[in-house]
Amino acid sequence: MGTASGAEPMSFLDKIAACAAFDVAAYLPFVVDGRPVGLVRPEFAAHLASFGRVFQVAPDHVYLDPELAGVEERTRAVDEVLHQLAESGMLPGWRGEVYPVAGQLEAPPLFFMERAAIPRFGIWASGVHVNGFVRDGDEIAMWVGRRSPDKQTAPNKLDQIVAGGRSAGYSVRETVIKESEEEASIGPTLALQARPTGAITYQTERDGGLRRDVLYVFDLELPTDFEPRNTDGEIAHFELWPIARVTETVRDTDEFKFNCSLVVIDFLIRHGLISPDEEPDYLALVQGLRVC
Amino acid sequence: MGTASGAEPMSFLDKIAACAAFDVAAYLPFVVDGRPVGLVRPEFAAHLASFGRVFQVAPDHVYLDPELAGVEERTRAVDEVLHQLAESGMLPGWRGEVYPVAGQLEAPPLFFMERAAIPRFGIWASGVHVNGFVRDGDEIAMWVGRRSPDKQTAPNKLDQIVAGGRSAGYSVRETVIKESEEEASIGPTLALQARPTGAITYQTERDGGLRRDVLYVFDLELPTDFEPRNTDGEIAHFELWPIARVTETVRDTDEFKFNCSLVVIDFLIRHGLISPDEEPDYLALVQGLRVC
Repeated sequence: MGTASGAEPMSFLDKIAACAAFDVAAYLPFVVDGRPVGLVRPEFAAHLASFGRVFQVAPDHVYLDPELAGVEERTRAVDEVLHQLAESGMLPGWRGEVYPVAGQLEAPPLFFMERAAIPRFGIWASGVHVNGFVRDGDEIAMWVGRRSPDKQTAPNKLDQIVAGGRSAGYSVRETVIKESEEEASIGPTLALQARPTGAITYQTERDGGLRRDVLYVFDLELPTDFEPRNTDGEIAHFELWPIARVTETVRDTDEFKFNCSLVVIDFLIRHGLISPDEEPDYLALVQGLRVC
Repeated sequence: MGTASGAEPMSFLDKIAACAAFDVAAYLPFVVDGRPVGLVRPEFAAHLASFGRVFQVAPDHVYLDPELAGVEERTRAVDEVLHQLAESGMLPGWRGEVYPVAGQLEAPPLFFMERAAIPRFGIWASGVHVNGFVRDGDEIAMWVGRRSPDKQTAPNKLDQIVAGGRSAGYSVRETVIKESEEEASIGPTLALQARPTGAITYQTERDGGLRRDVLYVFDLELPTDFEPRNTDGEIAHFELWPIARVTETVRDTDEFKFNCSLVVIDFLIRHGLISPDEEPDYLALVQGLRVC
């Protein structure tokens, strides 16, 4: 195997390191109703300071005006500010999807926030990633998607057959069913066969802020005659790769989108395709896939 | 399902909590060759203080005499002390097996130490646990072992079909092969089919000190006509249980040995038998199985 662009040999651990710890001291806690729910960069906090009816910026934290008491009131007030930031170009990539904001993931939401703003406020979010694979005897082949050149995040990178953020109001399973249909034309009957296998967590500086994600990981063994078709324009095309090619591509290149690499590494570990006696970084990989 | 002895309902998360964090301030670092390799209780350090040629006890740490420079010299000197502690009843449960001691697991060992002393010095150790299961269509049944009433640790508790500590000089795979034969009469050909699926880590106060373990977890799908037989007297008998009974027993009772519960929970998560939409503690379970 060659290495990317003749540089240092790459490794699985590089891919974990690419989603690694950040300097928490470089952020201000974002506090809602007395609870820390996120982390904001001081530069972004300076923009928020112009909206004093909604955001109050103290030297050591940013908080939502306590007068904004209910879920609806907070949601509406924050949304108005975010729209103004978007109009003035300070919040690119508006999605028109909202995510819940809470003291901790899966807790009752304090309000709802436009997806594009989630990393700016360092809010924990969740998504689903599905490993679509085919067995041929003992051999495994995996479907990989090439992301569309028009995607606003990670254009042209490799992706799982199905992956997507979990918007407010959708259960984990509903998100799998919805994304399976949109991204790969996998109908609900087949999507229901996707098996939850755990979760990956990371915190990493990206997308103009801090991505703090829980990825719920599913395995979906597909019939050999199934062929995914993208319907929402997010994937340019799909290919079925022998697992050895997937392994080498994740280890030796940066072709996979940063978080999709972690999902592949987790798959390889769970399926015994990375083994403790042969991989010196085994424990670091296992632990690196789940940070607090 | 009833709950154990009419007390509070039990949960999967209780089993994680039973292997949970300890008060590091209640221990003194154990330092060898300038590297912290373990944690020692002050009461035990007081016993070590009588062996000043080997152990030196400072107010805030315990260290091996730096004059003991090589692996062999350290091993021999520590072993002499441990034998004396064992003879005077202060180190019960001598095993006659040595474990490597290093700055971190899998690093070159600084010396080797009798297994019974490992928790007393809070040294990280590793072991293997094998989930032995049988498929009948979509249904899974799991072999469980009832530990012998004569076992020095956790007599009569439930265990995996194969589990054991990894002594110095054995690879992870060699440990699986050795323990499979001794504990369940699983020959090497079948044992080689056991698939590594990850690792569980915990630190917990037990066995007169601190257990700091990495459990390398394997799945072994067994032929339906295979029946395990114990040959080393460690398991009283084996039973094949429907996975629902295993699930309920882990969740609702303390029948499984403390760390075997974690291995079952990890199996249930990986096989989709605990799911994120139905288990409110899902993320806490996933993260609790791998502590740093």
